[in-house]
Amino acid sequence: MPGHPASRSTDDASGDGEVWARAAWSVVAEPGDATAGAVVAALGAPAALAWALWAVTTTPDHALARLRRLVARGGADGAELPDDEPGAATGEPGAGSGPWPPSTVRVLARALPRWAPRLADLDPRPALDDLAGRGGTLLVPGRPGWPARLDDLGPAAPLCLWARGDPDLAALTERSVAVVGARAATAYGERVAGDLGAGLAERGVTVVSGGAFGVDVAAHRGALAVGGRTVALLAGGIDRPSPAGNLAVLERLVDDGGALVAESPPGTPPSRARFLQRNRVIAALAGATVVVEAAWRSGALSTAARAAELLRPLGAVPGPVTSMVSVGCHRLLRDAGAVCVTDAAEAAELLAGAEPAPAPAQDDARGAAAGHGTPQAVGRGAHRPDSPAARVLDALLRRRALAAEEVARRAGLAEHEVVATLGLLELAGDVRRTEGTWLPTA
Amino acid sequence: MPGHPASRSTDDASGDGEVWARAAWSVVAEPGDATAGAVVAALGAPAALAWALWAVTTTPDHALARLRRLVARGGADGAELPDDEPGAATGEPGAGSGPWPPSTVRVLARALPRWAPRLADLDPRPALDDLAGRGGTLLVPGRPGWPARLDDLGPAAPLCLWARGDPDLAALTERSVAVVGARAATAYGERVAGDLGAGLAERGVTVVSGGAFGVDVAAHRGALAVGGRTVALLAGGIDRPSPAGNLAVLERLVDDGGALVAESPPGTPPSRARFLQRNRVIAALAGATVVVEAAWRSGALSTAARAAELLRPLGAVPGPVTSMVSVGCHRLLRDAGAVCVTDAAEAAELLAGAEPAPAPAQDDARGAAAGHGTPQAVGRGAHRPDSPAARVLDALLRRRALAAEEVARRAGLAEHEVVATLGLLELAGDVRRTEGTWLPTA
Repeated sequence: MPGHPASRSTDDASGDGEVWARAAWSVVAEPGDATAGAVVAALGAPAALAWALWAVTTTPDHALARLRRLVARGGADGAELPDDEPGAATGEPGAGSGPWPPSTVRVLARALPRWAPRLADLDPRPALDDLAGRGGTLLVPGRPGWPARLDDLGPAAPLCLWARGDPDLAALTERSVAVVGARAATAYGERVAGDLGAGLAERGVTVVSGGAFGVDVAAHRGALAVGGRTVALLAGGIDRPSPAGNLAVLERLVDDGGALVAESPPGTPPSRARFLQRNRVIAALAGATVVVEAAWRSGALSTAARAAELLRPLGAVPGPVTSMVSVGCHRLLRDAGAVCVTDAAEAAELLAGAEPAPAPAQDDARGAAAGHGTPQAVGRGAHRPDSPAARVLDALLRRRALAAEEVARRAGLAEHEVVATLGLLELAGDVRRTEGTWLPTA
Repeated sequence: MPGHPASRSTDDASGDGEVWARAAWSVVAEPGDATAGAVVAALGAPAALAWALWAVTTTPDHALARLRRLVARGGADGAELPDDEPGAATGEPGAGSGPWPPSTVRVLARALPRWAPRLADLDPRPALDDLAGRGGTLLVPGRPGWPARLDDLGPAAPLCLWARGDPDLAALTERSVAVVGARAATAYGERVAGDLGAGLAERGVTVVSGGAFGVDVAAHRGALAVGGRTVALLAGGIDRPSPAGNLAVLERLVDDGGALVAESPPGTPPSRARFLQRNRVIAALAGATVVVEAAWRSGALSTAARAAELLRPLGAVPGPVTSMVSVGCHRLLRDAGAVCVTDAAEAAELLAGAEPAPAPAQDDARGAAAGHGTPQAVGRGAHRPDSPAARVLDALLRRRALAAEEVARRAGLAEHEVVATLGLLELAGDVRRTEGTWLPTA
């Protein structure tokens, strides 16, 4: 079969069989296919592809036997096919132990029919040509630009990434925070997402998000508005943003030094399953994840769950408890140990080694807003409420001047202390003396 | 000196010297005066008062010597004067060890002049008469109605409480949650406080709060509206609510079986220092504390800090990050380990032994609001996004019927799996067959 991938040498037209074979695998396997990931890790992408092309023509038992021989002859050490069968470790001697245990046959029995329809007429060239026509790059593990954080996904790591924009996705995302949330965001959510995007960009942190309406696009726009760089992960191909209405901002993102990235080849439509798998890439790619608005059941919560599984710092932005699209964020704060994030400084602080966010300035507006239990706080901020000065000022009356002795009784202070304090307050202009008695000036 | 407290027998007009002397002490000592608390704990209130009346006429050294002799003759064992002098444990042999160490003299040197002006013409009878005239009760430690939780405050525990309404404050607050927050609450904060008050009352939980505008009064009103009982702690006397505009709701609170409580005797005006001390009583009295809205610097945060010190469960209600009066709540969530509380069920859950709040109903409104990554979630909620059914439905096209083989390729599923799934979906009415090809029905 001329032109068939299995018949191509590893020194093909692109000059790189590994890259070509990984592109082919991303055509064959759906995002997050851990069986494909394990075989590719064990044999290398070209040999894994050759094996798969033969394997779909035989039985799972034979496919496994050959896989074992290939691995024994020089495949990567220690790689294992995922063993997700319940009871896999029972019933067969040696099952569940060592690489490629017998139970793997059941994993292959599911994977091979899944791959077969796409292997039958496999040709990644149109997708690669499309990528080249857009000036894009195929990123593969271990090569320059590949973000090592993705390897934390193990066999479920992307086999490759189809990227436009800056090809050094590793450098671009080294200091990055994922800002994710509801498509059906409120004006509040979009404002917060935009502020986070801008504030992170100003701190030199790359924003990572999807390409949806609502929080995603608001975060990108916020970063771009201040000259920042952002990365958008799409659930379909890089030519298939969803919704298409966000094409303009995604193009600008590429022009401004960011990256538009997809795990599936061009032409792949987004689907619910691919959105979920895309979320794992966002969680793995970013140094931390912040959820801005999310309903009780929201895809953003899957991103959050993946981030938590990967031990990535997780933040959630609070909102009104009366807002349905903040329910998911509050759930994360209550149940998932998410950190309460209220501004970009706190979002950046999630990144390891970051400086703690400074306390907000103690400006008058905040001081004046102080409430419960400080009825006369405004204008008397100079004294701690329990200080003698504050207690003396509180004990004075506006309508009747008091003697120091009476002030002492009212304040519960020693008279000598009251006399000394009144003297200081008089110097500060806070009280005035009238024939041996005292009045507040303010 | 006829009528002087020191000359009264312990079998006085009220029939109870301890009660009478504690009332007198609450006239002499400001709320939270731990020195007064320690002496009263050591000698009993009447003997402590007699000692104090003599002590203010002599030197702190003599006062301490006599205190030691009184304690040795039969005062409560192990009680200690607070030792808050830096370096108290140095410079004098034995300083800082044992009850009433020599450094206590410095504590007394500050306390005695503080008490002297009020001891000079001490007479608690007008305050007690005022209380009786209002049908109130003086609650004292260890007597019926005294809430044992207050004893957690140690020597800073209230010496007594001046109360109107239900005299069994212990039973009233056994299951109770403090709902506190900003006076300058927003409409949002007042709504949430009201909802919390009502929801807690419906769960048989007593609301504890202050008597201020904003969150305090909204929480009381919410509970009263559904027939609940609430406790208001005032910073001045029970006749001095602040603001006076809340008198109506506080009267209603008393009429409806709740309680209006003050640590200071009637006639005492509220002051900033007394507000702060009042907050410690709220924190100690309630089984848990929830802060609804609080600015960066807010009295409610002092209540929260006291609750945390007392190891009481602490909750904070999130709000918009753009709201200055939610800054304090978010600070508690970030830095103080406060639990995110979004409704009354979650507030009640803070109480030890409470049932966990149930997950909200998975109604359509919430499902429809789900966002990020689930573009077609509405109307397809029956299938998990990663299920074969969901993947097959996503792979179908509306405008062109597809063969099962093509669906398999698009979905990344085995063809036999697609055929079986299409059959099930056809039975469910989700897809229809057209000459061997398939279309979605919806």
